[in-house]
Amino acid sequence: MAAPRDLATRKADALALLATPAIDVWVATASAAGAPYLVPVSLAWVGERAVIAIPADSVTARNLIANETARLAVGPTRDVVMIDAVLERSVEVGADEALGEAFAGQADWDPRRDTGYLFLVLRPVRTQAWREANEMRGRTLMRDGAWEI
Amino acid sequence: MAAPRDLATRKADALALLATPAIDVWVATASAAGAPYLVPVSLAWVGERAVIAIPADSVTARNLIANETARLAVGPTRDVVMIDAVLERSVEVGADEALGEAFAGQADWDPRRDTGYLFLVLRPVRTQAWREANEMRGRTLMRDGAWEI
Repeated sequence: MAAPRDLATRKADALALLATPAIDVWVATASAAGAPYLVPVSLAWVGERAVIAIPADSVTARNLIANETARLAVGPTRDVVMIDAVLERSVEVGADEALGEAFAGQADWDPRRDTGYLFLVLRPVRTQAWREANEMRGRTLMRDGAWEI
Repeated sequence: MAAPRDLATRKADALALLATPAIDVWVATASAAGAPYLVPVSLAWVGERAVIAIPADSVTARNLIANETARLAVGPTRDVVMIDAVLERSVEVGADEALGEAFAGQADWDPRRDTGYLFLVLRPVRTQAWREANEMRGRTLMRDGAWEI
């Protein structure tokens, strides 16, 4: 097991990962009845927001529009960035040109070519990063929306 | 993008993946208040059940014991096995020797060396597998706890 990284290194690694072209994010949401849901989708990291594009009638979109909370994971299971996020806004994919360009510039598909998709813009509230057990300590990089470093 | 796999191939691939040594699973749960939670943990696949070992006071254990429902993901984001599962039973890690041996035999750690851990035994209800967009059709391998093939 490698030596644990310090906070500054974890933050730099996390930001580099989030800005990687053609990367995916696991999106965990819950229904009003408490049913957990989870899907992998393409991620764009735009102005410190996690942006996903998803059908308006999908379980994830319905859950997020109803309770405005998601927990996101990026990276493999032993080098993760975990983000607790709130829904800042949702917009039809054709209705915000700057956001559409930013999303298509990072992701390897352009949802504006399809119909019925929304951009969901998610604002991180808590961000954590760890690799293995020896990095559980010191894993919190952001609390209450503010970076620790 | 590769050609879509048929159902039998997906099932064989899924079962091989679940039985892989030292593999992890993403576990999505929800609190009674509807807050989504997500963590990666070690997986053992024992008698067609997904078994995880987790601190009894963790968010995941509390959520699962309260509402008995999880959504699991195994594999990278573009080659996933997704499992909707229910909690079949929970047991202290020292209290079921056969389960402890099975878990330690697949995972790369033995929770019986630590204190305060539970085995949570999760019974799959719906299992899906897909790689990319062209495999969304035909992704359901199990419905209502019964394999489709």
